Amino acid sequence: MLINHPAPELQVSAWLNTSQPLSLSALRRKVVALYAFQMLCPGCVSHGIPQAKLIRESFSADEVAVIGLHSVFEHHDVMTQRALEVFMHEYRINFPVAVDMPSSNGPVPLTMEQYQLRGTPSLLLIDRAGKLRFSHFGRAGDMQVGALIGQLLADPVASPDNAACSEEGCAIGR
Amino acid sequence: MLINHPAPELQVSAWLNTSQPLSLSALRRKVVALYAFQMLCPGCVSHGIPQAKLIRESFSADEVAVIGLHSVFEHHDVMTQRALEVFMHEYRINFPVAVDMPSSNGPVPLTMEQYQLRGTPSLLLIDRAGKLRFSHFGRAGDMQVGALIGQLLADPVASPDNAACSEEGCAIGR
Amino acid sequence: MLINHPAPELQVSAWLNTSQPLSLSALRRKVVALYAFQMLCPGCVSHGIPQAKLIRESFSADEVAVIGLHSVFEHHDVMTQRALEVFMHEYRINFPVAVDMPSSNGPVPLTMEQYQLRGTPSLLLIDRAGKLRFSHFGRAGDMQVGALIGQLLADPVASPDNAACSEEGCAIGR
Amino acid sequence: MLINHPAPELQVSAWLNTSQPLSLSALRRKVVALYAFQMLCPGCVSHGIPQAKLIRESFSADEVAVIGLHSVFEHHDVMTQRALEVFMHEYRINFPVAVDMPSSNGPVPLTMEQYQLRGTPSLLLIDRAGKLRFSHFGRAGDMQVGALIGQLLADPVASPDNAACSEEGCAIGR
Repeated sequence: MLINHPAPELQVSAWLNTSQPLSLSALRRKVVALYAFQMLCPGCVSHGIPQAKLIRESFSADEVAVIGLHSVFEHHDVMTQRALEVFMHEYRINFPVAVDMPSSNGPVPLTMEQYQLRGTPSLLLIDRAGKLRFSHFGRAGDMQVGALIGQLLADPVASPDNAACSEEGCAIGR
Repeated sequence: MLINHPAPELQVSAWLNTSQPLSLSALRRKVVALYAFQMLCPGCVSHGIPQAKLIRESFSADEVAVIGLHSVFEHHDVMTQRALEVFMHEYRINFPVAVDMPSSNGPVPLTMEQYQLRGTPSLLLIDRAGKLRFSHFGRAGDMQVGALIGQLLADPVASPDNAACSEEGCAIGR
Repeated sequence: MLINHPAPELQVSAWLNTSQPLSLSALRRKVVALYAFQMLCPGCVSHGIPQAKLIRESFSADEVAVIGLHSVFEHHDVMTQRALEVFMHEYRINFPVAVDMPSSNGPVPLTMEQYQLRGTPSLLLIDRAGKLRFSHFGRAGDMQVGALIGQLLADPVASPDNAACSEEGCAIGR
Repeated sequence: MLINHPAPELQVSAWLNTSQPLSLSALRRKVVALYAFQMLCPGCVSHGIPQAKLIRESFSADEVAVIGLHSVFEHHDVMTQRALEVFMHEYRINFPVAVDMPSSNGPVPLTMEQYQLRGTPSLLLIDRAGKLRFSHFGRAGDMQVGALIGQLLADPVASPDNAACSEEGCAIGR
């Protein structure tokens, strides 16, 4: 499992709702809530996206980054980037969304594969030092998610030097 | 307004979830709940479609017909028939759905235009004699909708003779 | 069972929210929704009373009478009339409430006993002719309740003479 | 305001759901969620008590203490200890509840007065060192409450020496 290990960098074919591409390494020192979804997944629409919005509203953007990850692993012909754009407009999603890079080997896109996600919606929480601390498929309670983010926020922010070299080794260039 | 007048026949480019096309005239003697929606309309997904399913579960199919009407008036390039099929599969919609016939004159499809709908979701209730009795845009309460259908169900079914010749003409054999 | 038989008259030790006692016989020609509850019953508070209020808001008081029935069958020392008054004030219950008459033979009050209720909340629907048409313990869906009331409303109002003598016989004194 | 100051000890006339009286000083080193409520307060029943239960379920009892505080400031004749016992039984409240000590000077009980609460429900969060960190009247979101508790849990536990010298007296240095 990836838990408590450095979160792999996102593999993205397009970014929406952001003027420039994001990277987990550039978000170091913030807590990152990464929400994998598919636009036609009922649980994502009823629960995942509202919770992602609630995270965005509940915490300062200086402290917590919320990123949607559109990880299409079925019905690729319908859940296109253009369809996603309409979906995000209609559902008023105003945080950055990454389109997970399609794989040439199968239906599961690359970031979803690398994070070993079981499906959508999945919530991933990454700490200020860039480690994956929580990965959950399906519905997670607001209080539990709030508590996890609260605990990650309470971590002292690692100094740049410390961040570069953690117990896992030295993460040069991130 | 169309209320209390004969409900115009549906103008449909394709039918889903039914082995053969339906028509309001053939449904005479049943109450018809016609639910206009768009697959990427948030209010349709959160409220309209669950209410349409609830109508389907609450009444006998011998007494009440539930028909979805996919009335796309925006983002036509994304809300295609193929996308609708995926949507209906993911959201487990198991009642017949008509694709509202596109217009050559503008974005609003023909049935939506003819019924003068203000948007989606819209609920239309048609009585056993084929008259439009209720047309509502937006959220309608379950109890109100139940009461309306209950009252329409209590109408004595028109005799075959009466049903055979309405303002639309004579529907022999129905 | 009492279903489809004349609804027995209420046995009441006190009336609240009404300037004078009500009787089912005087409500003949209206549909009556009788909602049995206890003020400290969680299901009554979370579901029953909100549904009773929704019935009150959804139908004209000229057509549908809503009556609460405080049927205390446990913890009598705590659920007193004075406590009920506070409860009704705090929960803003504005329809008439009857206090079910205590029994000298056991904890179950007389009206609850006569209607053979299984517990609280219980919803009883009485038609315009004074017959019990629905008796349900626990949660009933809003659409189902709406449909039932709608159908009862569609019954032609019986004339006073007809109401006195129905198919069940002559309901003298009611 | 009391925020960030040592939380005053509770003034209690009776304890329920606990074999012996609790005190904030004895709970030092835990986060304490103190939930003030009245049994006939609609917002307490619909929101406050469910949230108190959710806190109890979401965190280890070794880390977070949940205490109900029955702060009756109106209708004292009805919201008696006996009525509270029935209420707690019916609503399956299984965490300790303190009955706030009545005042001889007015309707507001002593703990409620000392904490300057505006009404019920009110949620108070006390950190591991015994300081009041959050006081909120009305509805608070689950994610916000989770985040606050998560952050308080992340505080390093004060050393036994500091904790020992802290029963409202030695607050300096915390």
